[in-house]
Amino acid sequence: MMKLSKEKAEEIASTLNYRWPDETVVAVAQEYLSGKVLMVASMNKEAVIRTLTTGVVHYWSKSRKELWIKGATSGHIQVLEKFYIDCDRDSVLLIVRQASLKACHEGYHSCFHYEVKEDGIQVNDQIHYKE
Amino acid sequence: MMKLSKEKAEEIASTLNYRWPDETVVAVAQEYLSGKVLMVASMNKEAVIRTLTTGVVHYWSKSRKELWIKGATSGHIQVLEKFYIDCDRDSVLLIVRQASLKACHEGYHSCFHYEVKEDGIQVNDQIHYKE
Repeated sequence: MMKLSKEKAEEIASTLNYRWPDETVVAVAQEYLSGKVLMVASMNKEAVIRTLTTGVVHYWSKSRKELWIKGATSGHIQVLEKFYIDCDRDSVLLIVRQASLKACHEGYHSCFHYEVKEDGIQVNDQIHYKE
Repeated sequence: MMKLSKEKAEEIASTLNYRWPDETVVAVAQEYLSGKVLMVASMNKEAVIRTLTTGVVHYWSKSRKELWIKGATSGHIQVLEKFYIDCDRDSVLLIVRQASLKACHEGYHSCFHYEVKEDGIQVNDQIHYKE
């Protein structure tokens, strides 16, 4: 688990450009070791700070307008292992350990389980980047 | 390279929820075989259709308000291999072959090359999800 001091977390959070709706950055969660992309969500400054200080991933819900701990009700929490910022500083990449291997509220390992194929959309919950 | 007919591409593009600014979905580009997350960008419906029909990744630039072919000027194009849609249908995951191994305009392989460490932010352009 990765955890920073509150002072350091606030310093890091202050360098981001919260230019998406609700003053957020886009957050991509990728699974530690497997490399599977699990989900995309939003983080405001408070979500970034709480994630970095607790090691447990927090997001901002644009629909509910509130901070939420991923997995707070389902138990499928995400433990932070590494944290990356992109060149524009408006997106972050979270490397996480996904509890229960279910990031998706539909019960799948990844939210990206709809694959576009020549004959339409199919459910496929395997690692995306391999054949 | 993955390519669909215009009819099929339009059908797929019509199922997405373009709820981000400028009527876009968030697009995450992940490298085929390596699993490296390369970048986050936006796609409007036209970008989705052109990507699916040509097999060459197109994005929507929110700053320039125009469609752009990734790598049109730099040569660092992205060839589409696979295309996934998430459960909310407002984000897509593109599995791509990245020409020249430079997705970032700063010359790095990935735009996510700033790693947050206990003592601050460091440049790290290695695979994120491994140690």
